Amino acid sequence: MVDQGFTLWFTGLSGAGKSTLSLQIATALEERGRAVERLDGDEVRQHLSRGLGFSRDDRNENIRRIGFVARLLSRNGAVAIAAAISPYREVRDEVRRAHEAPFIEIFVDCPLETLVKRDPKGLYAKALQGQIQNFSGVSDPYEPPFAPEITVHTDRESITDSRDVILRWLDTRHLI
Amino acid sequence: MVDQGFTLWFTGLSGAGKSTLSLQIATALEERGRAVERLDGDEVRQHLSRGLGFSRDDRNENIRRIGFVARLLSRNGAVAIAAAISPYREVRDEVRRAHEAPFIEIFVDCPLETLVKRDPKGLYAKALQGQIQNFSGVSDPYEPPFAPEITVHTDRESITDSRDVILRWLDTRHLI
Repeated sequence: MVDQGFTLWFTGLSGAGKSTLSLQIATALEERGRAVERLDGDEVRQHLSRGLGFSRDDRNENIRRIGFVARLLSRNGAVAIAAAISPYREVRDEVRRAHEAPFIEIFVDCPLETLVKRDPKGLYAKALQGQIQNFSGVSDPYEPPFAPEITVHTDRESITDSRDVILRWLDTRHLI
Repeated sequence: MVDQGFTLWFTGLSGAGKSTLSLQIATALEERGRAVERLDGDEVRQHLSRGLGFSRDDRNENIRRIGFVARLLSRNGAVAIAAAISPYREVRDEVRRAHEAPFIEIFVDCPLETLVKRDPKGLYAKALQGQIQNFSGVSDPYEPPFAPEITVHTDRESITDSRDVILRWLDTRHLI
């Protein structure tokens, strides 16, 4: 018996909490006995996208590749968790359409002002000073989803709250 | 309960029977209720390796990407079936080492003379006349594995025989 696979597609600005949250969800699902694969933007870049840069086309191609791997995993019973910024709506929707298994888009929403204030790695400061190019939300667009399955608000919810919102959603749909 | 995943890595010259055989095996394993993903060389090229050519480096990069996807699928309970020529031993061994789940290399052995005689698509004729460049076994090396888990001889076995050799091997190891 193969489990019902699905893809959790986290999207949101840098620092919004995609990685932390996806890690918590992965742990919770593994505890329930599921096969879970986190597709980290950087790891996928290293293995599948050597040579691609950060232009719009190259970013989109990288997202398509993450999407292809998520699609294969989810249609084979695994839970694929993608946690890349994936700033462009069109490509996220393209990945969604290609999926056979459920594709669940999770918008990790946090206002830019909050992110600039937190900025633990100093990335926003550098982006605002022009030291980092093509930074989503600062010098490059970020297009929030129109109709994500789930939205979490990491400026005013704890990580545990956001995690539980997602787990409850999956539970209600009998996906876990 | 997640199944024990594994990777079946078919390697061999063009026309030796990798695709036909991998399709038969996929069907047999699906009938046993397994999640099976065939990673076809051309499909993977389209989705993961746009822009790569057929130089040694580009071929190897393509094989590494197939290997990465097979690794993720197999460690999540699926059966990944790769059926690319994968002519270079070093890269096949690199993919093997990266695997967490069992990696089963299947050498689809067929003498070049037989392939040249059969040649249903006329590819060998073109390669021998120099109309196709970088053709493994003719104008490019093909390095057979030193110690494949399974060898099938498609010049003197029927496809059904070869299929059964593989299924018996998996059965004996309690992988199916």
